[in-house]
Amino acid sequence: MTRIAIVGVAGRMGRTLINAVQQDPDASLGAGIVEPGSSLAGADLGELAGQGRLGVKAADSLAAVVDDFDVLIDFTAPEVTLANLAFCAEHGKRIVIGTTGLDDAQQATLDGYRDRVPMVFAPNMSVGVNLTLKLLETAARALGDEGYDIEVIEAHHRHKVDAPSGTALKMGEVVAEALDRNLKDHGVFERVGQCGPRTAEEIGFATVRAGDIVGEHTVMFATEGERIEITHKASSRMTFAKGAVRAARWVAERPAGRYDMQDVIGLN
Amino acid sequence: MTRIAIVGVAGRMGRTLINAVQQDPDASLGAGIVEPGSSLAGADLGELAGQGRLGVKAADSLAAVVDDFDVLIDFTAPEVTLANLAFCAEHGKRIVIGTTGLDDAQQATLDGYRDRVPMVFAPNMSVGVNLTLKLLETAARALGDEGYDIEVIEAHHRHKVDAPSGTALKMGEVVAEALDRNLKDHGVFERVGQCGPRTAEEIGFATVRAGDIVGEHTVMFATEGERIEITHKASSRMTFAKGAVRAARWVAERPAGRYDMQDVIGLN
Amino acid sequence: MTRIAIVGVAGRMGRTLINAVQQDPDASLGAGIVEPGSSLAGADLGELAGQGRLGVKAADSLAAVVDDFDVLIDFTAPEVTLANLAFCAEHGKRIVIGTTGLDDAQQATLDGYRDRVPMVFAPNMSVGVNLTLKLLETAARALGDEGYDIEVIEAHHRHKVDAPSGTALKMGEVVAEALDRNLKDHGVFERVGQCGPRTAEEIGFATVRAGDIVGEHTVMFATEGERIEITHKASSRMTFAKGAVRAARWVAERPAGRYDMQDVIGLN
Amino acid sequence: MTRIAIVGVAGRMGRTLINAVQQDPDASLGAGIVEPGSSLAGADLGELAGQGRLGVKAADSLAAVVDDFDVLIDFTAPEVTLANLAFCAEHGKRIVIGTTGLDDAQQATLDGYRDRVPMVFAPNMSVGVNLTLKLLETAARALGDEGYDIEVIEAHHRHKVDAPSGTALKMGEVVAEALDRNLKDHGVFERVGQCGPRTAEEIGFATVRAGDIVGEHTVMFATEGERIEITHKASSRMTFAKGAVRAARWVAERPAGRYDMQDVIGLN
Repeated sequence: MTRIAIVGVAGRMGRTLINAVQQDPDASLGAGIVEPGSSLAGADLGELAGQGRLGVKAADSLAAVVDDFDVLIDFTAPEVTLANLAFCAEHGKRIVIGTTGLDDAQQATLDGYRDRVPMVFAPNMSVGVNLTLKLLETAARALGDEGYDIEVIEAHHRHKVDAPSGTALKMGEVVAEALDRNLKDHGVFERVGQCGPRTAEEIGFATVRAGDIVGEHTVMFATEGERIEITHKASSRMTFAKGAVRAARWVAERPAGRYDMQDVIGLN
Repeated sequence: MTRIAIVGVAGRMGRTLINAVQQDPDASLGAGIVEPGSSLAGADLGELAGQGRLGVKAADSLAAVVDDFDVLIDFTAPEVTLANLAFCAEHGKRIVIGTTGLDDAQQATLDGYRDRVPMVFAPNMSVGVNLTLKLLETAARALGDEGYDIEVIEAHHRHKVDAPSGTALKMGEVVAEALDRNLKDHGVFERVGQCGPRTAEEIGFATVRAGDIVGEHTVMFATEGERIEITHKASSRMTFAKGAVRAARWVAERPAGRYDMQDVIGLN
Repeated sequence: MTRIAIVGVAGRMGRTLINAVQQDPDASLGAGIVEPGSSLAGADLGELAGQGRLGVKAADSLAAVVDDFDVLIDFTAPEVTLANLAFCAEHGKRIVIGTTGLDDAQQATLDGYRDRVPMVFAPNMSVGVNLTLKLLETAARALGDEGYDIEVIEAHHRHKVDAPSGTALKMGEVVAEALDRNLKDHGVFERVGQCGPRTAEEIGFATVRAGDIVGEHTVMFATEGERIEITHKASSRMTFAKGAVRAARWVAERPAGRYDMQDVIGLN
Repeated sequence: MTRIAIVGVAGRMGRTLINAVQQDPDASLGAGIVEPGSSLAGADLGELAGQGRLGVKAADSLAAVVDDFDVLIDFTAPEVTLANLAFCAEHGKRIVIGTTGLDDAQQATLDGYRDRVPMVFAPNMSVGVNLTLKLLETAARALGDEGYDIEVIEAHHRHKVDAPSGTALKMGEVVAEALDRNLKDHGVFERVGQCGPRTAEEIGFATVRAGDIVGEHTVMFATEGERIEITHKASSRMTFAKGAVRAARWVAERPAGRYDMQDVIGLN
């Protein structure tokens, strides 16, 4: 049974993490932390997350709950995360980090703990997305030089401001790398008017923006006679929360080191 | 039982039409015509189409088979079609025309026969595509002003040289017209980089080019909480051939007039 | 501007309705009602729904807010709904009813108010589902006797206990009725082993149960050469809440009468 | 350049194989064989396949073309295949066998040649299907014990007489084996009426039969928050023909041995 602490339980991701821990039979919720001085300190974590009462109260510092957990889950901000990482190093804890936006110096600081803290650090904790990247690599290697056209189609909600999505680009990169191509030369991001026939080596991207679509990605490999399509559909942030809990269970039994989700899923 | 003649049975569309007539229990194959002087004159139409022997031989002029049919199906070239139309007018025949590329003068000539010949003239004979256009109009009227985002996604084979497809643009136009918008102002044909959030009135297009895809079109209406998707997938030119045969049966019982596929399907 | 009152704001549907009213620029939230004696009486409706403060407090009876609304939205239980309907009749209010499970006698009681109260009564308030039913009728009429095979495919979350879903069956019925068939004779609900080729008139159903799928329905019309697919995907209960708010705005300008969602959407 | 001979060029698969060889820049068509006494002996192979003239004539025995090929492709019948295999052993040729229906004794005879002939033997030559099986194994290993529900959905044309398809069952078996389950216990092939909630370990199958669908298979892995879908769509028998030509090129450079498509694609 892995005892987990969650930082930032006042936010939406924090509340989702509470639910994910509750659903996992091999994990227990040891502690939840809010910012010092928050009016939510002392609130029941279950009620915070819209469930019934759990009997664990929100603390306002890690120190206050140091004996109540083995692994910390942290989706916050770079400075907060680095301070929490130092705390884990000092007290023999493990950590799962989903925080994004670390600059190079912050990345280096984080990396400096790899010999002292067992940690999972991944910008995208979704098990499904990470598995999909692995499947794409396998498929590209098997098909790519045999006349299969490759296209990436992605759909997101109406509020998304960039295109294609970062995940779509990452998928394209994985495919390109497996085939010794690169997206700069072979990515095709628009087709309008008399654009001529498709070239064999291009990797096409198509973007849909509509409604409340959380995130859908399909990579298609098509040739005369058949198509293979590998699709990931996210329906809620639970996909990230569940990945983080799985990472926490996994890292609870690992020596010091810096791991990513491919390690957690067993794909490396 | 509608007796049908097919012009151009030497070509791929002509052979597909032979198969479509054979499959229809309410139609019979009265005649098939090849170009004057063709070495295929006299060939059995069934064998030409890759079936067994049918017992009807390819003729090399309409005059030779004038008593053998009620409705002519013509997917040829503008001049040929207009000559065949004149023949139909003179001999009391009906005609289904799938020929494309008529210029304005040729269109006017064709239209001049509307009081004398029962004819169906349509650039796309697919029943499914024509039905889809009707469904899109209904959907756009019901949803368009209520916060539903509209996107058109289309996929075709690697050889197609233009984007979006003519059918995708037609679908966009039908939707735009139903909502008093127009594609010039509201069509969005590319989204790359920091393109900002979606606007409420835009109609987005996404294009996929891969493998041997005959033609797939989806129009999506999406809002918070739900999506409606209307999809047409063509798998072979049989979709056009079957539409033409259905039109032939239908026009066999109509007075002189110029009709389109919406009339044939009963959607007008 | 339609002033709306919502009964049952303590429940999940009630809270979703609060959000839907807030998002609609042509509707305002006049009142929200909780059960008499509830500890939530007096709570701010915005905070109840997980938004910021709205300045409208939950009341514990309709009488207390009789001057604050024009249309009542009611997704509760049959007895509660009939009592609320009587209140609306007495005070010149309008009502949108999404309550299910009324028995014949309760239906008759409800119907007795049709000359005095403008009301929308529909077991499924989703605009998309109701539109889809209309599209299916149109498609079935155009295609059904022309050799198109019809299949209904539905997917729901792992907890759903019955199959096919009520909505899938309703879709099948609409299609069957349009074609003078009936589901008792022509519905095929399982195909296992050596089941033989498909018959032309059967309507097949396929069921998927997995994960957290809210509800997806596709009706496919397929023949040689083409397929038409009409799909509805629900992503949250907002689809029902938004339909109810649309119905409220619509019924605010109608004379007494009993209407359904087809009326609201303009499809009758 | 691999020189290929095709047995059975009078049939549909044989003609498709001719086209597949022609499209492959690294293969050439050395010979095509028809049954002894066939009226097609001497016909040009290109014209047989509906292309222009190729300058290679159909032979009526392997012996007549023994110097014209390196690898034989054989999609015929068990006895014919075994005779051709003996011929290859005697003359130092290689062989790709897509023939199905061999009984145990015939399988043993075939296997007896593994030390003398480089041969690829596979009941399904589709590269895409074989790759898909590999992807399913990887996905099942990564996801299966982590609360992902697994469903197999397949669609075929109206004439197919059994359900689920053999390929769907094979997909289910691969997934089951990767998870130490078995289809006998965990396969669910129908859900009708009050069937109760889904169990965690079941593998569900859904079947669609409609129109001219060549063959579509999707395996879905779904949990709260996300779905992964792996899909194969066949659009013509070219998928099998192209796989056979790829196998021929591959086996041209291998020592004696019995290989399958996983070997050819590089997945073993």
